[in-house]
Amino acid sequence: MKQLVRVQNFMLSSDGYGAGEGQSLDRPFGDADGPALFSWAGATAHWPNRTDPGGTYGLDDYCTRDYRNNIGAEIMGRNKFGPQRGPWENYDWQGWWGDEPPFRTPVFVLTHHPRPSFTLGATTFHFLDASPKEALARAFDAADGMDVRIGGGIETVRQFLDADLIDTMHVAVASVEFGRGERLWVSADELLDRFHLERIPSPSGVVHHFFWRR
Amino acid sequence: MKQLVRVQNFMLSSDGYGAGEGQSLDRPFGDADGPALFSWAGATAHWPNRTDPGGTYGLDDYCTRDYRNNIGAEIMGRNKFGPQRGPWENYDWQGWWGDEPPFRTPVFVLTHHPRPSFTLGATTFHFLDASPKEALARAFDAADGMDVRIGGGIETVRQFLDADLIDTMHVAVASVEFGRGERLWVSADELLDRFHLERIPSPSGVVHHFFWRR
Repeated sequence: MKQLVRVQNFMLSSDGYGAGEGQSLDRPFGDADGPALFSWAGATAHWPNRTDPGGTYGLDDYCTRDYRNNIGAEIMGRNKFGPQRGPWENYDWQGWWGDEPPFRTPVFVLTHHPRPSFTLGATTFHFLDASPKEALARAFDAADGMDVRIGGGIETVRQFLDADLIDTMHVAVASVEFGRGERLWVSADELLDRFHLERIPSPSGVVHHFFWRR
Repeated sequence: MKQLVRVQNFMLSSDGYGAGEGQSLDRPFGDADGPALFSWAGATAHWPNRTDPGGTYGLDDYCTRDYRNNIGAEIMGRNKFGPQRGPWENYDWQGWWGDEPPFRTPVFVLTHHPRPSFTLGATTFHFLDASPKEALARAFDAADGMDVRIGGGIETVRQFLDADLIDTMHVAVASVEFGRGERLWVSADELLDRFHLERIPSPSGVVHHFFWRR
């Protein structure tokens, strides 16, 4: 099967924002209400960060359990990797995710300030100063025939959408307005010229948006 | 993670029937309208029997793409394996699925008339005259730590429900009435004492029913 480029479990406010302003180490979502975006996922049985048994097995869980399904690599922006901007002062920062990051594949971090690759648990991080298309070629190679996830943040998803490189996209829209911050869209309808779209309301309150290429 | 017993992509009419009467080699659904039950699945990108590219990637596809996800064995009834009843006249019949059955795991066929195991493609069929509980112990062993799918038909799913051995169940209910045949339920509400239930309507017209243990 053809290797796909997929966005999964990407979380937005009802007005299209993925994070607020003023992101920092203590506040990865800036001044926005992060839990309002991701509590639906945390309630599911297959949430990658779940440590206790239990959780739901309904619609939302189909989304979280698909997280690693046939994914061979991820591409993320530096703003997802960490709160630092500009040249690295040192290489102490190894991401938000502790000793066993949930990716468990090669991860390519797009940055104008590359640094040496490193491995943490089952995940190896590589740093690329590259265009979306160039990064994707590297990720396809590393994915061993499987699909590539575009992990975010907003700016990175936008770049890949602008380059028309995304095949399928799942966005979970929460019933909360942020009003400002980093925005993916004013309305999901902006993408209807290139994508099919199903909007599926979940009992948890989010509306799952499933896009695939026309 | 605990091994689960799962029913997946099980298809019913709106009045709870999975097949009509008079099943035969030519008519695996008997006098009932089979395509009305499974056309939603055939339209998806990940339908296991799909041979051409294309297909949808929306809600219905999350169900079909989950088909092999963490499944290590299947248990099915003899009525799913084939149209014959009673003692085998010979062992020529090897199932409906051609040279490469979609299971790709060990499959345990419940029957009062065991026959020798055989392998077809990546699937090995075993034949057991056993209770649901005994069969499940064998399937858990064979599943190598992964989950076990209860593949049907109706009678087999009922037996496992009656023995309270099912952890999660996905049933796709089509908007067609059969009026007679093999019936799983009069109403899905019959299971609410033991299961959580989410009913999620799909744009394709089926209503996905997601059950998990209380």
